[in-house]
Amino acid sequence: MIYDDVFRSAVEQLHTEKRYRVFADLERRAGEFPHATWHAPDGPRDVVVWCSNDYLGMGEHPKVLAALTETANRVGAGAGGTRNIAGTNHPLVMLENELADLHGKEAGLVFTSGYVSNEASISTIARLLPNCLILSDALNHASMIAGMRGSGCARKVFQHNDLDDLERLLEEAGPDRAKIIAFESVYSMDGDVSPIGAICDLAEKYGAMTYLDEVHAVGMYGPRGGGIAERDGVMHRVDVIEGTLAKGFGVIGGYVAASKPIIDAIRSYAPGFIFTTAIPPAIAAAACASVAHLKTSQVERDRHQSQTLKTKIALAARGLPVMPSETHIVPVLVGCPEKAKAATDLLLSDHGIYIQPINYPTVPRGTERLRISPSPAHDDALIRGLARALDAVWSELDLPRRYEAIAAE
Amino acid sequence: MIYDDVFRSAVEQLHTEKRYRVFADLERRAGEFPHATWHAPDGPRDVVVWCSNDYLGMGEHPKVLAALTETANRVGAGAGGTRNIAGTNHPLVMLENELADLHGKEAGLVFTSGYVSNEASISTIARLLPNCLILSDALNHASMIAGMRGSGCARKVFQHNDLDDLERLLEEAGPDRAKIIAFESVYSMDGDVSPIGAICDLAEKYGAMTYLDEVHAVGMYGPRGGGIAERDGVMHRVDVIEGTLAKGFGVIGGYVAASKPIIDAIRSYAPGFIFTTAIPPAIAAAACASVAHLKTSQVERDRHQSQTLKTKIALAARGLPVMPSETHIVPVLVGCPEKAKAATDLLLSDHGIYIQPINYPTVPRGTERLRISPSPAHDDALIRGLARALDAVWSELDLPRRYEAIAAE
Ligand SMILES: Cc1ncc(COP(=O)(O)O)c(C=O)c1O
Ligand SMILES: Cc1ncc(COP(=O)(O)O)c(C=O)c1O
Repeated sequence: MIYDDVFRSAVEQLHTEKRYRVFADLERRAGEFPHATWHAPDGPRDVVVWCSNDYLGMGEHPKVLAALTETANRVGAGAGGTRNIAGTNHPLVMLENELADLHGKEAGLVFTSGYVSNEASISTIARLLPNCLILSDALNHASMIAGMRGSGCARKVFQHNDLDDLERLLEEAGPDRAKIIAFESVYSMDGDVSPIGAICDLAEKYGAMTYLDEVHAVGMYGPRGGGIAERDGVMHRVDVIEGTLAKGFGVIGGYVAASKPIIDAIRSYAPGFIFTTAIPPAIAAAACASVAHLKTSQVERDRHQSQTLKTKIALAARGLPVMPSETHIVPVLVGCPEKAKAATDLLLSDHGIYIQPINYPTVPRGTERLRISPSPAHDDALIRGLARALDAVWSELDLPRRYEAIAAE
Repeated sequence: MIYDDVFRSAVEQLHTEKRYRVFADLERRAGEFPHATWHAPDGPRDVVVWCSNDYLGMGEHPKVLAALTETANRVGAGAGGTRNIAGTNHPLVMLENELADLHGKEAGLVFTSGYVSNEASISTIARLLPNCLILSDALNHASMIAGMRGSGCARKVFQHNDLDDLERLLEEAGPDRAKIIAFESVYSMDGDVSPIGAICDLAEKYGAMTYLDEVHAVGMYGPRGGGIAERDGVMHRVDVIEGTLAKGFGVIGGYVAASKPIIDAIRSYAPGFIFTTAIPPAIAAAACASVAHLKTSQVERDRHQSQTLKTKIALAARGLPVMPSETHIVPVLVGCPEKAKAATDLLLSDHGIYIQPINYPTVPRGTERLRISPSPAHDDALIRGLARALDAVWSELDLPRRYEAIAAE
């Protein structure tokens, strides 16, 4: 058996389907976000990044960088061990307290990433509950699905944000069976928001636990950056809130916040938490500074929203097919992987604008799109430049203009 | 259903079995390793850490810290996105090249942790091979087991380091079936080493792929720190080498190195790689500096070995039950979770020595132990102090002295 041939043909298939991904080698420049250097095959070039998940630009905030470098110089680079074996470090303990406070929960637990926090927490919680049934929103993230699979528990999928469908499944399961409703607040490819309060109503009515992924909302919504659940005044009703330190907070790592028994059970039973090196103290301190800053500072959130709104208006004014997002995510529909790739190639080569095409399996086939994420650092001139560039590319490639027209097809 | 009660009783069970883990809140001090501050419940105290996995103390190396802080100040704290969407950063690309070179492979791929690298790579490789059978060493790490489970493929376990047992399974599987042999080089709880060359012989004879976890060896063995496979001159015969950036290299992150087709397939198909934020540029740069330094510097490796040998001799001279390790890991058998905990509590309270007890499920029940990891920074005086302290604790708790006597029970 020629093993390499199998892998070669697996990759070949992606080329055939026009969804082979080439990573752009970027170099950010602190203090100049969203400007960055693109290490192109023919040498470095200046680009404007319009698809970063460092949504608020906190990755270059002076407080965050000061905490990172000061802590690294004082305590060193790595944690040096797993949480149990010499790896629990003081900044990490402080970060977990900060996160518990952010979400008004008894305890917080930090993981190496948001992906791992979902996978490890969902699989552990569900496995510990006898005969547990997981009710999962149809658009849940890959990391949540990995957690559900890992649990070995039964899983039923409800239509995206569909309360009737969810209630049907809850009723079907009966009141006595252990049930977890797993869902997100902001769905990151469409920018729509879930009805958290109404889902909590159903959870209470039918005796289910709620597990909420706020990865694309923490730092950005709610008076202290606690997310959509905080904004909607329902944070106390959600059993487990999961978030990332890598997007709105601009660093890396993931976490859950919940009651003490839940956190202690995950801490004690999740292999993905136990058998891995803890995050570095300097990373924990940087994340902690970011979370603390956004608890009291509203300017980033306000400007994030205003620049997003301006972007949506500027693109729509040119007839570009902006999908109906309620949040800071601005998806522009293309509907074909080759054209999405062609559009982003042109944006980069002719306009110095870096946006990655989003294609299957991240979004369903036929809904390939550009996913634009304006930040507080994208000023009005950059927004005008983006609108002009997209307009030109849309004309050049003869792409469809109106969202309604495409969506109706 | 009162959910919290279920979690409370799951945790209660750990208390009953005396294996509830309390994390010590440590604060390392760069430049003073292995000295650290322990944030005890009653205030901070000075301790000597004897169980760190920052085996060479690279976490405080000036080159590593300079790379980390310089890069953070220049490019910011986080990567800002997944590898595909704005997250691939220049230092990370350089790190992957450095790692491919370290292992003499065509390509390298970096993950958020060693745990994730094993889970994502093994599950993806095995899933892509039709009807694949995984042959797994009985003592493989939890992260490899998670990868095998995740693959959904058949798995057979061979006796630890047992070539006959492995050959029996290979023969049974037949020549045509896709087969992966998954094993480690240094087994971290016993410190023994696998016969990599002989396993490669079997792999060739029966047409199997080899997947080798060198997590506890990279940086520390081989003339350039390529691990045990490099030391044994068989690195080119292993198909996939997996390692961590969090132990010998002192930072955080994990990786695999292999042929281009294998790496491209993992890169393109592994959810645990695709759907998560890339590691921060500053972390990549720090790891890169560490890998590059250890490629040419031998002093850390030499002193690591000399201080380990001195530690083993000092403990054995006092009749302490040092288990027969071939490497830098010095396990001292206790054989009971309560006594292991009591011993480490005494070491901390009376001698300012921090060592975590290792108990089930990390090691089999009945083999609970102290796992000591001397580093180049543990000087002769510290080694003498450790031996004296262990001797005193062993007497105070009346623990058994000789390994052979306990092992024979
Ligand atoms: C909804 C959702 N959850 C979790 C994650 C994973 O978070 P992280 O990047 O911190 O691993 C992501 C994206 O990366 C996400 O979109
Ligand atoms: C054999 C082995 N593989 C993988 C890992 C995971 O590496 P990391 O700590 O980088 O997640 C560990 C320990 O943590 C390990 O002991």
